[in-house]
Amino acid sequence: MKSEKISDAVVRRLPVYLRFLNELSRREVPTVSSQELGQKLDLNPAQIRKDLAYFGDFGRKGIGYDVAYLIEKIQQILNLDQQINVALVGAGNLGHALSNYNAYLKDNMKIVAVFDASPAKIGTQINNITIQPIEELTETVREKNVRIGIITVPDFEAQRVADQLVAAGIGAILNFAPTILKVPPEVRIHAADFTTDLLSLAYYLDNGNGKEQPVHES
Amino acid sequence: MKSEKISDAVVRRLPVYLRFLNELSRREVPTVSSQELGQKLDLNPAQIRKDLAYFGDFGRKGIGYDVAYLIEKIQQILNLDQQINVALVGAGNLGHALSNYNAYLKDNMKIVAVFDASPAKIGTQINNITIQPIEELTETVREKNVRIGIITVPDFEAQRVADQLVAAGIGAILNFAPTILKVPPEVRIHAADFTTDLLSLAYYLDNGNGKEQPVHES
Repeated sequence: MKSEKISDAVVRRLPVYLRFLNELSRREVPTVSSQELGQKLDLNPAQIRKDLAYFGDFGRKGIGYDVAYLIEKIQQILNLDQQINVALVGAGNLGHALSNYNAYLKDNMKIVAVFDASPAKIGTQINNITIQPIEELTETVREKNVRIGIITVPDFEAQRVADQLVAAGIGAILNFAPTILKVPPEVRIHAADFTTDLLSLAYYLDNGNGKEQPVHES
Repeated sequence: MKSEKISDAVVRRLPVYLRFLNELSRREVPTVSSQELGQKLDLNPAQIRKDLAYFGDFGRKGIGYDVAYLIEKIQQILNLDQQINVALVGAGNLGHALSNYNAYLKDNMKIVAVFDASPAKIGTQINNITIQPIEELTETVREKNVRIGIITVPDFEAQRVADQLVAAGIGAILNFAPTILKVPPEVRIHAADFTTDLLSLAYYLDNGNGKEQPVHES
């Protein structure tokens, strides 16, 4: 099912679908149509049907999608049918803020370790996780089977941290540092640098229209 | 020059170019080739030449791009030849973290106002900006000519804040709340929700390769 190459834009919409489907599930709504999904998520229903068709024939004409089944399938597709452990490197304001989002992640993804270089922070707790020294990163990543790293250290430290994460065997990095990281091609990087987001938004101030939400169309 | 529709992926690369060009300028490097840019930014030099050609004939064969001229041009393209004022709504951990990035923004973009609903926070300072009550949002946005809003409030408050920002005349929103906002088509929204980033990264853990940095290719 995963043999076909799925575009990044589609992959980025899947968690958005999942979030709303989980909400429906909590409200015990059994089925949902692509029209309802489209209205709620501000997406074209045809686009949604096309996205979901990549992964199999989920929908039933006139009935819609079975919410529980669709959640299960999207979780499988996103590898979230297993627990994915995440480590956060950098326990500053941003690190604190991100660790608060653990509650939003659910779906079998969890920040399980936090690292920082500052002796003042090491040993203190951040959302019930004890901050560890960076020196313990490699060992902890391996022990706890951490698959994804979040980098929230200053830009000049980011490459060194990325190298350590990669050496420890991590498969993907979410990088908040405003710098370009060099990693081997098998490691997936997503640049979450908000300064890039903000500066590029300025372009659209004079250029009128251009809805981009919820995800970067391609 | 702006009559041609430029793809979002190109627009998102421009701040990345700008950041490195500013670094070169500080080091008093007069010219840079697309090869050097490509190596530093982990992008294909041909892609860079193509991106920059959208905006005019900047480069000189064998010499490269004039750094100062290219900075000026990219700033113009991004509307950063004027000061763009930004307001931040939500002074929690994430708001604090983002306001620290003011130093990275330079380039004529600045967070000039911060709002929060909490009486305990109102009147206190965050990076030299006094936190104002949300009730003052409309007036301040108009007075200070704020063009972009950053939303870092909890998800259930985000739509109300977005409505207020739009009513006050803002042109673009960077939304960190994990929810889909409804705004008029002339308002540009960028979803910076990191939970979406993180959950979609899980997809690539089993699927091998897939460099995405520095910007979402399209």
